[in-house]
Amino acid sequence: MKIAVLPGDGIGTEIVAEAVRVLNVLDLSFEMEEAKVGGAAYEAHGHPLPEATLKLAQASDAILFGAVGDWKYDKLDRPLRPEQAILGLRKHLGLFANFRPAICYEQLVGASSLKPELIAGLDILIIRELTGDIYFGQPRGRRIATDGHFPGAEEAFDTMRYSRPEIERIAHVAFQAARKRSRKVTSVDKANVLETFQFWKDVVTEVHKEYPDIELEHMYVDNAAMQLVKAPKKFDVLFTGNMFGDILSDEASMLTGSIGMLPSASLNAKGQGLYEPSHGSAPDIAGKGVANPLATILSAAMMLRFSLQQPEAADRIESAVKSVLAAGYRTPDIWSEGTHKVGTREMGDAVVAAI
Amino acid sequence: MKIAVLPGDGIGTEIVAEAVRVLNVLDLSFEMEEAKVGGAAYEAHGHPLPEATLKLAQASDAILFGAVGDWKYDKLDRPLRPEQAILGLRKHLGLFANFRPAICYEQLVGASSLKPELIAGLDILIIRELTGDIYFGQPRGRRIATDGHFPGAEEAFDTMRYSRPEIERIAHVAFQAARKRSRKVTSVDKANVLETFQFWKDVVTEVHKEYPDIELEHMYVDNAAMQLVKAPKKFDVLFTGNMFGDILSDEASMLTGSIGMLPSASLNAKGQGLYEPSHGSAPDIAGKGVANPLATILSAAMMLRFSLQQPEAADRIESAVKSVLAAGYRTPDIWSEGTHKVGTREMGDAVVAAI
Ligand SMILES: CC(C)[C@H](C(=O)O)[C@@H](O)C(=O)O
Ligand SMILES: CC(C)[C@H](C(=O)O)[C@@H](O)C(=O)O
Repeated sequence: MKIAVLPGDGIGTEIVAEAVRVLNVLDLSFEMEEAKVGGAAYEAHGHPLPEATLKLAQASDAILFGAVGDWKYDKLDRPLRPEQAILGLRKHLGLFANFRPAICYEQLVGASSLKPELIAGLDILIIRELTGDIYFGQPRGRRIATDGHFPGAEEAFDTMRYSRPEIERIAHVAFQAARKRSRKVTSVDKANVLETFQFWKDVVTEVHKEYPDIELEHMYVDNAAMQLVKAPKKFDVLFTGNMFGDILSDEASMLTGSIGMLPSASLNAKGQGLYEPSHGSAPDIAGKGVANPLATILSAAMMLRFSLQQPEAADRIESAVKSVLAAGYRTPDIWSEGTHKVGTREMGDAVVAAI
Repeated sequence: MKIAVLPGDGIGTEIVAEAVRVLNVLDLSFEMEEAKVGGAAYEAHGHPLPEATLKLAQASDAILFGAVGDWKYDKLDRPLRPEQAILGLRKHLGLFANFRPAICYEQLVGASSLKPELIAGLDILIIRELTGDIYFGQPRGRRIATDGHFPGAEEAFDTMRYSRPEIERIAHVAFQAARKRSRKVTSVDKANVLETFQFWKDVVTEVHKEYPDIELEHMYVDNAAMQLVKAPKKFDVLFTGNMFGDILSDEASMLTGSIGMLPSASLNAKGQGLYEPSHGSAPDIAGKGVANPLATILSAAMMLRFSLQQPEAADRIESAVKSVLAAGYRTPDIWSEGTHKVGTREMGDAVVAAI
C-alpha cells in the first residue's frame, strides 16, 4: 500500500507533518512518499500540479493532502493558481464522491455560533458530487454576446451539466451511506429553475426505487441553506451537486464551530481517495505552530478506513483524538477558558501519546 | 400613480390584505388594482402569469406581491408552475436589482438560532442581480452528451452567463447603496472556478474606480456562506449574482430568526419595482389567520420610498411597525414567553392603529 503525501501551502506542511507522525506510530506496513503541490509546486517547478506529483498520486492507493493557496498567487493566470492542483487531482483521478461530515464535538459545543441546544449532538454527512456540474462543464470562456440582454456586449459564460450515469453513481453512494446511518437522505437541487437539477431530481427519484428502506426528501438549495441554520439536526445524509455542495458543506462545517476538527474524503470508483481537512491553508497563521492538526489527523483515519482497509487503526486514531479533547488539549481555534492551550506540535504529541 | 396588487397563493392573500389596509389608511392618492398570479392564476386562467396580469404589472408604477407556490403544483410542467410567474415578472419588467435587507430587530434577538451577541444589531443589505446568470441563460435543456465523462449518455445542462453591462449596472447600484450606509461593499464570486465570476470580479473592480470613497472586498461564495454564520455583523452591503444571491440571501434572512419580518424590493432601470416579503407562501398555515403580515407591510413601505416617492409615508409605516413590536404584539412565528400573541388580522389592526 502506498500513500502520496502532499502537504501543499500555508499551514499544510505543519498539519500534515503531525498526521504523518500519527500514521508512523501505528506501525502499519505502507510506504509514504511526499511531493509538492499548489503554490509550493509552482515555486519549485512552475506548475501547481507538476507531472511527477500527478503520477505519484495516480500510482498511490491514497493521498494525504494538506491545503493549497495564498493571496500572493491571486495575480497568476488561472491555470497556474494553487487551487488548480486540487481541481486537477479530482479530475484526473475521477474523485467524484466527496464525503464531508459536519460533526459537533461534545466538548466544543460552546465554540459554535449557534445556540447549544440547536447544535449539540449534530452529526450530518454531506456528500458532494465532485467531478461534474459547472466546475468542469465545457464550453466556458469569454466572447461577444449574440443574444440575451445586451447583444454585442462582452460576456463570460460557463456550462452546468450532469449526465444520467454521473447522477446515478453519486445517488448510489448517498443511499448506501444512509444504510449505515439513520436511513434518511436529503437530495438538494434547484429543480424549480435549472434543467440540470430537474434532471438530477428525476434521476435520484428513479435510483431511490432500489432503496425502499431509505427515506428520500428533496429540498431546494435556498431552503437547505436556511434549514441548516434553523434546525441543522433535522439532516442526516445531505447530498447534492458540486456547486451547491461547495457552499452548503462550508456553511454546515462553520455551524459546528470547529471547522478545524473536520476531515474529508474524496473517492473514485476504484476506492482510491484523497483525504484532506475541510479547512483551508490559512496563510495568516502559517509557520506559527498554532494551526489545529486534528482535521488532518482525522482525515488520515478516514484514509485508513476507506482506502487502506485498516478500520481498527482508524478507530485507534479517532479514540485518541477524543481522549485528547477530553483531557482538555486545545489549539487556539477551539480554545476556551479552563482548557489547556497547545500548539500544532504539542497537539500531535498528545495524539501520539494517546495512541 | 398605480399599484398592481398580486396576492398569489398560500398566505399571500391574507398578508397582502393587511398591507393594503395599511396603505389605505395613509390616505395617499394612488390607484390599486388586483390580479391573480401563481397557482391562483393557473386555477382561474390556466397560466401562472396570465397576459392580463403581466399587462397590469407593466402599466403600474409598482407591484405589491404576496407569495406563490404550493406542493400541489409540483407535478405540473415547469412553464405552468407558480414560480414561473415571479421569474416571468422579473424578466419581462427587467427587474435586475433585488434588495434584501437582513435586519435583526432588537426585540426579536432571541428568535435567532445564533447567539445574541453575534446577531444583535445585525443590519446587512444584500443586493442580488435578478435577471441574469444561470437563471435565464440560454442554451439549456436535455440532450445526448457528445463529450464529458459519459459521451453518449443522456444529460441536462444550463448556461451561466453575465455580460459587462449587466455587471456594471448592478455594481453601480451596490456602490451607490453603500454611500447611504457604511461605505463598505463585499462582492461575492467564485472567480477561482468560474469564468463568469472571474469576469464579474474584473468588471466590479473596474467600476469600483469610480467610487474611491467606498471600500470593496471580494469574497468567494463558499467563504461568504461561512462568514455569514461566523460573524454576520462584519458585512454591510453584500452583492452578488442571481444564483449565489438566492442562496446567501435566504441564509442571511434565516440568521436573523425573523424572516417573517423581512421585506424585499426588485427594481428596474426606470424605477418600477416589485415588492414582496422575503418568506414564501407557507401553504401549511394558509387560511388559518396566523401568518405574519409585517414583512409585506414593510415591503409596502419600501414601495412608497423607492417607486412612489413617498418617503414620509414609508417612515410612518416603519415607525408603526416598530411601535407594535415595542408594545409586545407578536404573530406565532416570532412569539416568545411574555409577549402578546396575535393573528394576521390583529397584527394588521395594531399597525393601522399605530399609524
Ligand atoms: C479551492 C476550490 C477550488 C475548492 C472548490 O470550490 O471545490 C474548495 O472551495 C473546496 O471546497 O474544496
Ligand atoms: C421561487 C424561486 C424561483 C425564487 C428564486 O430562486 O429566485 C425564490 O427562491 C426567490 O428567491 O425569490
